Order: sequence, then C-alpha cells, then structure tokens
Amino acid sequence: MGEHRNISNAVIKRLPRYYRHLGELIEMGTERISSGELSKRMNVTASQIRQDLNNFGGFGQQGYGYNVKFLYDEIGKILGLDREYQMVIIGAGNLGRAIANYTNFEKSGFVISGIFDINPECIGQSIRGVPVRNMTELETFASNNKIDIAAITVPKSAAVEVADRLVKLGVKAFWNFAHVDLNVPEDVIVESVHLSENLMRISYNLSKSEDERGRRHYGKEKAGKRI
Amino acid sequence: MGEHRNISNAVIKRLPRYYRHLGELIEMGTERISSGELSKRMNVTASQIRQDLNNFGGFGQQGYGYNVKFLYDEIGKILGLDREYQMVIIGAGNLGRAIANYTNFEKSGFVISGIFDINPECIGQSIRGVPVRNMTELETFASNNKIDIAAITVPKSAAVEVADRLVKLGVKAFWNFAHVDLNVPEDVIVESVHLSENLMRISYNLSKSEDERGRRHYGKEKAGKRI
Repeated sequence: MGEHRNISNAVIKRLPRYYRHLGELIEMGTERISSGELSKRMNVTASQIRQDLNNFGGFGQQGYGYNVKFLYDEIGKILGLDREYQMVIIGAGNLGRAIANYTNFEKSGFVISGIFDINPECIGQSIRGVPVRNMTELETFASNNKIDIAAITVPKSAAVEVADRLVKLGVKAFWNFAHVDLNVPEDVIVESVHLSENLMRISYNLSKSEDERGRRHYGKEKAGKRI
Repeated sequence: MGEHRNISNAVIKRLPRYYRHLGELIEMGTERISSGELSKRMNVTASQIRQDLNNFGGFGQQGYGYNVKFLYDEIGKILGLDREYQMVIIGAGNLGRAIANYTNFEKSGFVISGIFDINPECIGQSIRGVPVRNMTELETFASNNKIDIAAITVPKSAAVEVADRLVKLGVKAFWNFAHVDLNVPEDVIVESVHLSENLMRISYNLSKSEDERGRRHYGKEKAGKRI
C-alpha cells in the first residue's frame, strides 16, 4: 500500500464523495463514465475531476472515460475500505441505536462488535444481534476483542472519561458525537460530529441572508425615495 | 446587525467552538479570561485567539482579558443565536428521535415544532411533547407554521423528493443526514452530516498510520540487516 503518499489533504477530503457517487453508478449498472458526465452528476468541474483522479495515475483513458468499478475499488483501497474494522458504540441511546442500525456501515467494512451503556434498562437488550453490555465489562471485552474504532454517543459529562478508558485499552480512533473536545494522545484519531455546531452554521447563514435581504430592501426603499 | 461583514469564513468556522468553550466557562462561573488561559483550554495559540477575537473589535482589554459573558453574547449574535428558529424533523427513526430529544438545541433557540414520518406505527406518537405527524400533513402544517429549518433524517431514497417538497413550501435551510446530495436552489442553505464520510476519514487515517508503522518497522529491519 503506497497510495497514501503525495495525495493532498484537499483531494483526500473529496474522495468519500467520489466513492459514494461511483457506488451509486455501480448500483445503476453504469460500467464507465466520462469526466464530463461525472462532472454533471457531482456538480464539480470536469477539470477538477480529471485533476483529482489523475492523482491515482492512469485511471481514465482517452475516449473511454473511467472504468467505474475499477475507480471505485481503487478509491476504496486508498480510503482503507479494503479491510475490516471492529467498532464499538459507547452509549445505547437514540444516537447509538441509529448508528448500530445503519447496515450500510457494515457493508463498508465497519463491523459493530460491541455496544455499551450504564443504563440497566438497556443492558441485555440486543440491537441487530449485538447485545448491549454493561460499561463495567469494557476492559474484559477489550482484552478478548480488538477494538479499532469507538463511537462515543454518551453525554458530554461522561465522554472524556470514557475516552480515557478506551485510550488505555489501546483504541486508536474515536468517532465522537459528544459536544466536548476529547483529550487524547497525538497518535489517536478523533473524528468529531458536533451537531450543535452544524446548527450554528445554519443559523449564521440564515441570519446573514436575512440581513442581506434586509439591506437590499433598505437599498430599494432609499432608491425609491430618491426618485 | 452589521457584524457579518468583513469576517473571514475561516474565523466564522471557528466561532461555534469559541461559543461552546465560553458557555462552559459561564457554567463554571468564570467571569473573565485571558487569551493565554483560553489558549490552553482550547489548544489553540494565544495569538490565534487574539487575532480571531479582534475581528469583533475591543472585546479584550489589556490586563483584564475577555469578559466571558459579553464575548459569549456577541459571538452568539454573530452566529444568529439571538433569535428563534422553527425546525421540523422529517423522519422519526432513531436519528430523528435523537435530535428531537436533544434539549440543548432548544436552549440555543432551535425549537422543534414538527416531526413527520410515513410509518403508521410512529404517527400519533409524541416525542418530548411534539406529535409525530403523517407526511401527508406537511403542506397544511407549513401553511400554518413557519419552518426555518428542516432536518432530513429519512433514507436517501426519499430525501431528494422530501427536500423538493420543502423547498416548494419556502424552507430555506436543510440539515441533511441522508447520504445524498440535495438539489436545492442556490439561496437555500444545506448543512450535511454524511456519517459514512466520517467513517471513511477514520479508515483512511487508520490505514495510513498502520502503513506508516509498517514502513517504520520495515526500515528498522533493513537497518538491522545492514549492521
């Protein structure tokens, strides 16, 4: 695996979207696609697509376009989707359940091997065949099972402590839904989903466009008065 | 409201994180804070903090630091959090329920006014006092209630059509959890949470660091053989 070298972060960030669109094309039975068609579909310029995909060398052929399946597989390899990851979910609330019930993750190689909670009402329940275990069993579980990724869907008051425990157990990647910064060593990967921050970006943009409409309206009124 | 002008997108992107940390400081009873202390807390350089917060002019005072509450309120205004937004949730599955149950959103001014689904088992249920309505009632509801934001938590096969319906009803902002691009007019805001793309960034980073460890190991072996 030498694909990782020399690909810029900007390109890497765009790969999941390519991967998704190529997957949809495969589902539709499309075998090959030109950069122009892909461009229309993805609402990105064709030159951007050629530039991005050229990073992997020789995927596209003049007059033929891209072999969808080949490109899909190659991008999958670069994204590390050619292997399996064992994921645990800490917190069996609605969010934890939503993730556990999302079968597509498993299809992409993210296997949910354990779900943990402290709530006696949840413990012992099963979500898609995976039992909800007591948090006290975490250490024992980790000594018998490899944990590649931990999804943290507990309230923020518990998240930091839970992450500390998991770091001690050797977990190297966190998918953090708690609205708090996890303090983990530098070699540990944290991918955070801060839902409140999403909402703040929406409110910022909504209030900005309202203000702009207000200013435009004010501008028109002024212009009207001047006549 | 003229705060929006001249603030770079990069700064705007960082504001929600400032807002969160300042909120935590208020909860802890902290009245003022120096850029140095805030820097340590947020793991950002103090000069970055001064630069960011200088955008709003005169929030910090030499030898006094920042007034936490004032800064919190000002950033809140810039983020449009000084008003209320009516949000509907389309899809009362686990993810929709998780969002509906998150009381913090409401505290920040995002009021959940309606929840919709097509599943007869959900319709009529109540989530935190908000009834789950039949999707067929969406148009009637929209004519009687302002909808500022729609959270889309339906499967991707339904998401595009649902968004089209909502755009026709005048909804100007979407919080999209479906793993698909919504085709909306340019003046409509879409904030997407693509959970699979999160996972792909994790798998990319995990496989990259595994490869790096592999190469380091290989390098050592080679060095060893050379001796």
